[in-house]
This record gives sequence, C-alpha cells and structure tokens, in this order.
Amino acid sequence: MQHKNPKALNLIRFVSVDNMMKTVLDIGIEKTIAGVAAQIEHDFKRWELFDKTPRLASHSALGVIELMPTSDGTVYGFKYVNGHPKNTKEGLQTVTAFGVLSDVDTGYPVLLSEMTILTAIRTAATSAMAAKYLAPAGARCMAMIGNGAQSEFQAMAFKTLLGIDSLRLYDIDARATDKCAANLAERGFGIIKCTSAKEAVEGAQIITTCTADKQYATILTDDMVRPGVHVNAIGGDCPGKTELQRDILLRADIFVEYAPQTRIEGDIQQLPQDHPVTELWEVMTGAAKGRTSGEQITVFDGVGFAIEDFSALRYLNDQLDATGRFESLDMIADPDEPRDLWGMVMRAAHTVVKAA
Amino acid sequence: MQHKNPKALNLIRFVSVDNMMKTVLDIGIEKTIAGVAAQIEHDFKRWELFDKTPRLASHSALGVIELMPTSDGTVYGFKYVNGHPKNTKEGLQTVTAFGVLSDVDTGYPVLLSEMTILTAIRTAATSAMAAKYLAPAGARCMAMIGNGAQSEFQAMAFKTLLGIDSLRLYDIDARATDKCAANLAERGFGIIKCTSAKEAVEGAQIITTCTADKQYATILTDDMVRPGVHVNAIGGDCPGKTELQRDILLRADIFVEYAPQTRIEGDIQQLPQDHPVTELWEVMTGAAKGRTSGEQITVFDGVGFAIEDFSALRYLNDQLDATGRFESLDMIADPDEPRDLWGMVMRAAHTVVKAA
Repeated sequence: MQHKNPKALNLIRFVSVDNMMKTVLDIGIEKTIAGVAAQIEHDFKRWELFDKTPRLASHSALGVIELMPTSDGTVYGFKYVNGHPKNTKEGLQTVTAFGVLSDVDTGYPVLLSEMTILTAIRTAATSAMAAKYLAPAGARCMAMIGNGAQSEFQAMAFKTLLGIDSLRLYDIDARATDKCAANLAERGFGIIKCTSAKEAVEGAQIITTCTADKQYATILTDDMVRPGVHVNAIGGDCPGKTELQRDILLRADIFVEYAPQTRIEGDIQQLPQDHPVTELWEVMTGAAKGRTSGEQITVFDGVGFAIEDFSALRYLNDQLDATGRFESLDMIADPDEPRDLWGMVMRAAHTVVKAA
Repeated sequence: MQHKNPKALNLIRFVSVDNMMKTVLDIGIEKTIAGVAAQIEHDFKRWELFDKTPRLASHSALGVIELMPTSDGTVYGFKYVNGHPKNTKEGLQTVTAFGVLSDVDTGYPVLLSEMTILTAIRTAATSAMAAKYLAPAGARCMAMIGNGAQSEFQAMAFKTLLGIDSLRLYDIDARATDKCAANLAERGFGIIKCTSAKEAVEGAQIITTCTADKQYATILTDDMVRPGVHVNAIGGDCPGKTELQRDILLRADIFVEYAPQTRIEGDIQQLPQDHPVTELWEVMTGAAKGRTSGEQITVFDGVGFAIEDFSALRYLNDQLDATGRFESLDMIADPDEPRDLWGMVMRAAHTVVKAA
C-alpha cells in the first residue's frame, strides 16, 4: 500500500481476524465481553436516539445475506452478515460478518473490522445482559442446548455477568459437546455433558437454546420448562427458523430487542402480530418491568439487532489507540482538490510509470 | 497481515484506491468505461433475475449514507455510499464509496473495493448507455452544466459510446469549468467554456445536468430545452434535490433506472406518483420504445441503482487475475473446525506470545 501523497483522509482503520483475536487476548475475553455488554447497555438506554430499521435481508435457497445499519446521529454503523447452516458441513462458518463505522457529518468510513468473532462476543454479551434483568436471582446453573461456535462465548458471558458456574451441555452431535466441554475445561465451571435436551434442562435456572438449523424445530418442548426459568432463545433468528414449542411462549413473558424485526425473525413468528412483548431497552430504562416473580417464565427471544453491532464496533474502536491492533487501508479517494477526481486518477500514471 | 495458517478461505481480494487508479490506467479509461457499460447493459437485459430494493438511506442534517444491495441469485453485491454536498468546502469528497461482492451459496465475501472512482465510472457509463437508446441520432454536441468530480467521466463516456466531440461547459464556479476543460484538453474535444447555463445549451443535442446542491434547484428552465433534445439529468438524486423545472418533465418522455427508487430520489419526485415513466431495461430488451421521433424530448432521470454497482464490481473482479492489482485481506474467520471459533481465538495466544 504505497501512496504518492500519503494523507490521513484516504485511510481507514482495519481490524483483521488476526488483530481481532489478538485484541481479545490482549484485553482478556471476560473483560472484552463485559466491555461490549456495558456499551450495549449504554446504547440501549438511549434507544430512542437511534435510527432503527429491520435488517435488509437477501434470502436464497441455501441461506441469507443481511445488512444491518443504524446511526445515533453522530456515528453510523452497519454490519454485513450471512447465515448459511449448510456451510458447516463444507468446512465453512455458518455465520461470517464484517462491519463498518462512519462519521455521520462527513459520511466518511473510519473503521472496517472483521465481525465473525465480534458478533459471537456481542451476541453472548446481549444474552447475558438481558439475563441480568430477567433470570431468577441467584441463578448458578445454565443448560446449553446447541454446542456450536456460539456456545463457549455464551457460557463465558453468563459467567462474567451473572456468575453462572454450572453448565449442562447437550448437542445432537456429541462431538460438539465434547469440543465445548474441552474448551471450557479450565474456566471454572462444573460441566455436565448430557445425552438429551430433557436431561440438560434438569435443575437449570437458565436454558440457552442456540442451534443452527434453518427450519422450524422444537428444541424445547413445553413440559421441559419449569416455572421460574429464564429461557435465552437465540437460535430462532430468521423466517422459518424457530426453536421453542409455541406453548412455552404462551406461558411466558417475552422480551425482545426490536419488536418489528423479532416478529419476522424470532421465535415469536409463531404468534399473532399483536401478541404482547416487551423491548429490552424499556426494561433497562425502567419504563417496563423485567422479572417480577419467582414463578414467572421469562423468554429472551434474541435475534441480534444492529445497535448491538454498533456498540461492539464502538467498543472496539475505543480500544485501538491503546492496543495498536489495526492496519490502515487506502479506501477513500482523496484528491487534493475535491472536484478533481479525474485529475487524481490520471496523475497516478506518473506513479505507475515509476513503479514499472 | 501475517497468519499462522494462511489459507485462501480467510482472505478476500481488496482493491485500494491506488490499485483502482492503476487498474484504470492499465486498461485505459475508454476501455474501462466501455467494459463497465457493456456489463451494465448485459445485467439490465436480465433485469427480472435480480433482487431489487430501493436503497437503504440514513439521512442527517448534512448528508446521507446509503447501502445499495442486489443479487442475481449467484452473486450478491452491495455498495456503501455517502452524499454530503458541504464536504467539498472542507476539502472532502461529496461522494465516497466502497463495495463488496459475495458468493450467494456460501455467503462469503470475495471482493472489497474502493468505489469512489468506480462509481464515477459506472455513473458515466450508465448515462452514456441510456443515451445510446435515447439521444437524437448523430448527436455530436453536449452541454454539461455542473463541472465537478463527475464531469470528465461523463464527457469521456459520451465520447466513447456516442462519439460526442463538442462540449459546452458551465458551472456556477468558473474554476470548476477551467479544471474540467484543462483535464479534457487533450482528449479530442472541441470545448467551449460558457458563462451561463443558457449559453451552454445553445446548439447542444444532449444536455447533462450534474450539480451537487442538496436542495430543490432549477438548473434547467423550460425555455432552455428545445424539441429533440436528450436531457441526461443525474444531479437530482435524493429527496429534496432536483435540477429540472417541472414543466420540462411534463413535455418529455421520462426514462429511469428503477421507478420505485427514482420516484423518491429523482427529478420526478416533483410529479404525481403515477406519472408514466419507462424503465431503461424495458427499452434495452425491446419491451418498450426509446426515442421515437426527432421532435421528442427525452429525459434520463438518473439516480444510480444497485445493479450498476454490481455490474461495475463484476467487471472489476473479472480483470483482477490479469491485472494483479489487488491485495489480500484477512477478513473471514476460518477455524480448522467450523464450530470451534472459540478454540481458534484462544489458540491464537501462542502466536501472540511468539510475536511478543
């Protein structure tokens, strides 16, 4: 990346996968999750400031590609993310993502970052943050149904924010459970590997469902959910993809990120459009109640919302000066005279001749 | 960008501003414009295959940031683009852009490119391509009102595709006209610098309006448009921003890219929602007529559509193996075992220790 006239204006910061991993390791995964959760909570509490829109999804037979933009009037952010459940079988990620932050006043992008890892972190941070308001007091034991790429991040977020120290794992593929258990072996959990979802939920105060099939599934049946439990349902996240038996939803108080999007993508796509749900930000600001009794069943029907990505990118961007874990990308054309884009291109001929 | 296990899966191709300039110079600007125009025409002729949606715009007091996605079912593309007319005064570009192509079947991005320069090229290519179907036969002289960053690209596109060799330039800022004239001095045009829009349109068979103010403006009044003229109106491209006096539109046959978007953003936002317009692809496939008489006034109300960006990125992507003008970006997390994203992050600790 050589430039004839290197100037700051043409450069944006880029956080590669390699630098994202190093950032997480520099800061520590617990502190990263806590930092992202704090930023999400900060932003959810000023919810009404944000431009909000359901994500723009392009569906195909094999998956979906989505753009998720938002803005708080000062900073604009968006994420590109795909969801292709069949990818795993081909050795690819089900979900890959990258994101951008821009300056609203100039429209210039300032940060480009990988977000496959960052999405796993923000998803886990959002779940745990919701559970702070919704899970029964003193919860220590969580069932995790679905032990794929998101599972360890969920476990660590619930440990960091709620003090969960007992895990009951189940996956239809026992190798996924073995992987998850091995990855978390030295993280201070008591871990029980279960052979059915029914076994996994026994005695758990929190049930996390995090599976990846793009179809109507019933990961959790009504009889498996005792009074007082908090269900963290994050795998039902696109049209036609659900995890919870409908009866559970009818017994529960349901909490969502952004209702217009969740009604399309979440488990509540099984319910009438006017079924009452509460948006998380209302609970955080005190405008609505979270858990009100020990017998109540609470469901966080998480699908992932643009503001969470915005918050995660903000958090990351705030770390870069200290970590130095970024590169500079020559992505913005910056002619000396703004109206002379043509001249800039044509004058580059001199550089090319010299380089040849 | 060092990786412990460099593998193709984590890398996407990146075309920087520097490499975009060198690509254009390697291939030649005329050939680049012609190539992009041919790809746009190819894609417009298979219009019905594409996922189409008006762009997703985030408006602020000072400008707009937009995402423009589309897909043909095999390849997905989107562009990020801003529009901030006040930027020029601050030494910044009014419009900056970048874009991405992805594989629909996996959701994996394959190309990231600067698109400030590429947008100027595709906008000019689209205008000239439209004029091939709409301008009076044998047109040689074009008036250009607005001599900013887009003007030279427009001039060269009309020269390359239509044989325009006489230019009549006008801008409210004479320095912009001087710059445009100087940049085009050795490109085979007869150039006349004019001191008013009225003078500029005298004898021109094609009138291009390409101004940047974000407000209702009247660049062209009704008396300035003679029968038989083709108006290439590309500066009226967002809500509240128009260039043509309404009476011109009422006398003309109007052609647009994608009517649902143009009715929001184009000069036709001045007309009722049901005012008849023809989409360009219909003319190209023969489903509708373009110019039918020598007396007819035709208006191309261009606002820029996602498929044009898609086509431009396709064209660019097809050149990369030959030009080699790209870098590789480590943007996609690619664990050896797809479900072991956590393990990949944590194992990176070994790399960090070594590097420290």
